Amino acid sequence: MNSDQDYMRLALDLAASAKGKTNPNPIVGAVIVKNGVIVGSGLHRKAGEPHAEVHAFNMAGEHAKGATLYVTLEPCSHYGKTPPCAKLVKESEVSRVVVAMQDPNPDVAGRGIKLLRYAGIEVEVGVLEDEAKRLNERFIHNMITNRPFVISKFAMTLDGKLATHTGHSKWITGDAARADVHKLRDEVDAILVGVGTVLADNPSLTTRLPNGQGKNPIRIILDGQLRTPLNANVLQTTEAETIIVTSNDADHEIVEMYEEKGVSFVYVSQDDNGLNLQEMLVKLYKLGITDVLVEGGGSVNASFLRANLIDKYLIYIAPKLLGGRNSITPFTGKDIDTMDAAMLVSFEEIDKYGEDIRITAYPKQGDQK
Amino acid sequence: MNSDQDYMRLALDLAASAKGKTNPNPIVGAVIVKNGVIVGSGLHRKAGEPHAEVHAFNMAGEHAKGATLYVTLEPCSHYGKTPPCAKLVKESEVSRVVVAMQDPNPDVAGRGIKLLRYAGIEVEVGVLEDEAKRLNERFIHNMITNRPFVISKFAMTLDGKLATHTGHSKWITGDAARADVHKLRDEVDAILVGVGTVLADNPSLTTRLPNGQGKNPIRIILDGQLRTPLNANVLQTTEAETIIVTSNDADHEIVEMYEEKGVSFVYVSQDDNGLNLQEMLVKLYKLGITDVLVEGGGSVNASFLRANLIDKYLIYIAPKLLGGRNSITPFTGKDIDTMDAAMLVSFEEIDKYGEDIRITAYPKQGDQK
Repeated sequence: MNSDQDYMRLALDLAASAKGKTNPNPIVGAVIVKNGVIVGSGLHRKAGEPHAEVHAFNMAGEHAKGATLYVTLEPCSHYGKTPPCAKLVKESEVSRVVVAMQDPNPDVAGRGIKLLRYAGIEVEVGVLEDEAKRLNERFIHNMITNRPFVISKFAMTLDGKLATHTGHSKWITGDAARADVHKLRDEVDAILVGVGTVLADNPSLTTRLPNGQGKNPIRIILDGQLRTPLNANVLQTTEAETIIVTSNDADHEIVEMYEEKGVSFVYVSQDDNGLNLQEMLVKLYKLGITDVLVEGGGSVNASFLRANLIDKYLIYIAPKLLGGRNSITPFTGKDIDTMDAAMLVSFEEIDKYGEDIRITAYPKQGDQK
Repeated sequence: MNSDQDYMRLALDLAASAKGKTNPNPIVGAVIVKNGVIVGSGLHRKAGEPHAEVHAFNMAGEHAKGATLYVTLEPCSHYGKTPPCAKLVKESEVSRVVVAMQDPNPDVAGRGIKLLRYAGIEVEVGVLEDEAKRLNERFIHNMITNRPFVISKFAMTLDGKLATHTGHSKWITGDAARADVHKLRDEVDAILVGVGTVLADNPSLTTRLPNGQGKNPIRIILDGQLRTPLNANVLQTTEAETIIVTSNDADHEIVEMYEEKGVSFVYVSQDDNGLNLQEMLVKLYKLGITDVLVEGGGSVNASFLRANLIDKYLIYIAPKLLGGRNSITPFTGKDIDTMDAAMLVSFEEIDKYGEDIRITAYPKQGDQK
């Protein structure tokens, strides 16, 4: 006899397989169990397609009656692209529903659960809640802040260097870590770099997975002075979309030259600290961008850090020591005087990728605005 | 029925309890097993005291006859402060000896084992050899190089900073990590810093363990121009010895002022790259110093790194991001141009200390001269 946790873990594993594929929707998995047998299972594969519960009930058919439904997110209670799942659950005549977490959307949180309880169904909430919240961290952040979830990703040597003083950085990490970055790109809506990175490395910022598959995220270039060369690889918009974020005061004749190449623009205010990133994030979210992978360089990273706009860190550390007074570090920008003014994070996970490691960290609770 | 590995692990655990207490000797543990019962156990506690085998045989008495001896290092074959253990083993009439590793001293390696086999005792070598070698890494290094084992230890933020641009660094890591550093100091013969660290922080460099115990290592100050203030805390030689390493050309009148305070001197050649560290290590080893904990700062660290003289790295990483163009990094010194010229290491262990982590790394095989 398996426990509620076991079935919920299975539902979470099902959900996780669609990571990055359901934006702007959450990822959700569902399992229906009757007399110790899984009679239905499903996951939400893609926005516009059926919700996880629908697939699971289709599979279960009449076996759903009297069964237990395990679902990683509170069943929805509103009519969207699909009818409300709470209604479907009610009609299925399951006798018990186990939910990992409430809907994070403050406008609807708890409504689906209430509806089920009102129908006489036993509902338990909070099984593997922490895991469920981690899995839908992007969606939860979207719902609460109306901004994209920002992931700061960089690769450094063990002594904290992104590149030598000449800017040379190919390659810090090995094949496994670099392959993981392409997996990340496949999972996010957008990838962001500063124009400095474009000028230094002329990257394509496309997704290259071993099987040749994978989607290209939208490329976002922070470029307050419109210095991106018109022949830069990131402006080859046939393979991936490109957005340049620039100042409200940008010269429209120059803007047109980029627009002719298929580039879109987002305009924000600009001051001595550079482009207003908070304003930018609000605008990007309105364009439907739910997460952004910030790939540097050091100056862009520092702007996000100082503005307290990073929601997650993925830091690849190579077993190398570079040294040097002028080697490039992950966050440049303005110096601060005392150690207690450092930004606090908490280590979540440390994983091995070949000879490299990857540290997953989050802003420490209370240290984030 | 336990396996050879189980008993050897026990012997290694016994040995490990004396880590840092047996210098210049190796740490050794021994277990004697007869009919599945441990009839004798022992460890080498301190130079000058009996070897591990002696304690184990004293405990076993006549039970040793026909038993199996597990010992973490090849029994010695020469008369030193104590008679050779191989002779004792032979006389004990054990029927089998399991040895984790050969004696690393190239002059005597294999002799003890040969002597036992010659006496008709079955000898097996290499059980948990890797663990045994790690445990005696300091001793093995001493035997092979005739130099102290050099451990580079520093604490940095997750973005690779030792201090802010003003030099402020109190504190990067939390209590648990700082307590671990005092445990390290208790285990080594000497601790080394540059005069820059003395001028900036005026540290005492003594061992402060929770129980008030622990030995103070010898403090070594790299000071090519004799800039250490005469009232510096490291010159309070009543609680710990201090050695200043300076140039052969040092002014003897100034040297005498330090000597009056009880400071010893080691003289080495000096060129544009600073004091000759290789020469220094040879001299320190002749003084009986078998390991040195290098505690920075960034310039001293870089000198050791560039000279390829670091044998082990212990890097504490705090979950903090400091940023800033002029923050201080672990290895300053001269810049190198391309990433492939970085020094390669391999990650051995990652441990948690409170909210901090500690990375143990070694120079990558073949990357060390």
